[in-house]
Amino acid sequence: MKKFEEKTYETETIYKGKIVQLDIDSVTLPDGNTSKRELIRHPGAVAVIAITEEGKLVCVEQYRKPMEKSIIEIPAGKLEPGEEPKTCALRELEEETGYTSDDLEFITSFYTSPGFADEIVHLYFTDQIKPMEEQPDGDEDEFVEQIELTVEEAEALEKEERIHDAKTAYAILYMKLRNAR
Amino acid sequence: MKKFEEKTYETETIYKGKIVQLDIDSVTLPDGNTSKRELIRHPGAVAVIAITEEGKLVCVEQYRKPMEKSIIEIPAGKLEPGEEPKTCALRELEEETGYTSDDLEFITSFYTSPGFADEIVHLYFTDQIKPMEEQPDGDEDEFVEQIELTVEEAEALEKEERIHDAKTAYAILYMKLRNAR
Repeated sequence: MKKFEEKTYETETIYKGKIVQLDIDSVTLPDGNTSKRELIRHPGAVAVIAITEEGKLVCVEQYRKPMEKSIIEIPAGKLEPGEEPKTCALRELEEETGYTSDDLEFITSFYTSPGFADEIVHLYFTDQIKPMEEQPDGDEDEFVEQIELTVEEAEALEKEERIHDAKTAYAILYMKLRNAR
Repeated sequence: MKKFEEKTYETETIYKGKIVQLDIDSVTLPDGNTSKRELIRHPGAVAVIAITEEGKLVCVEQYRKPMEKSIIEIPAGKLEPGEEPKTCALRELEEETGYTSDDLEFITSFYTSPGFADEIVHLYFTDQIKPMEEQPDGDEDEFVEQIELTVEEAEALEKEERIHDAKTAYAILYMKLRNAR
């Protein structure tokens, strides 16, 4: 769907980094006027809603520099170039939590900030996880701590803003809905 | 919580735009090594889950430049400097849909991309809406079309990726959970 399309007549790349690229597109609006759009280019990401045998949500706590605080999130990570989302989801689950799974089910995908960024999150679900025999290495500049939460614990942490991101808020509703069935 | 804190020893501002600012922070990691963090600064946003008397979700379709497609989302918008989130939520609901409400309830807030951006979305709910007598003006470079969806219609559109963003995916689960009660 291209309703209200904004046609680009010029792109200026301001910055190309390790994670994001910043472009400024000059566009023609549907009414013929022009405007500028600030666009963050991102390789995309995956996240996993993993539920233990006891019905707990597997999470990791990590420091998030943009907010200068550590928050508790479901396992997630960036896609490597050419990587299949499902392969990436399994890799991130293993690296961040030490669990593995033969049964990752795709739920949905969503853009996180459609107004200014093209970051997409591919979301997977599993309630079939087992501890790995040997814990794989994660990224060398990533420090995470694992934590497993009942839905009540997760909701309490969300009220305290220690769970404070979109994909984990989504995961909590997903769990509640699953428990309600 | 500052677990695994990354201390900044230098900040370089690469770009300051209308919507985003890009900073590169040089940081000291918990193990004493150093790294760089690419950080998108954003003023924050609001979104509204508004339900009509018939139980439909009020949405708007608009072109989203980062993905080069138009998607259907719940009403949302950026905070103006100093603006209260609730005031902003009511303003965006009125501007984008022509509905108003005396009864906006705060649900939760979440960061959209905690790995690289500080954009936060403050989310409100209302099932008490009424059409405004006079439609207010929206942003001059914003073109939106209103659409009202049953939860089944919304889910079908999500499968087709015409609903394709985090806050609207959250809104669909929120509606389903509310209907399940």
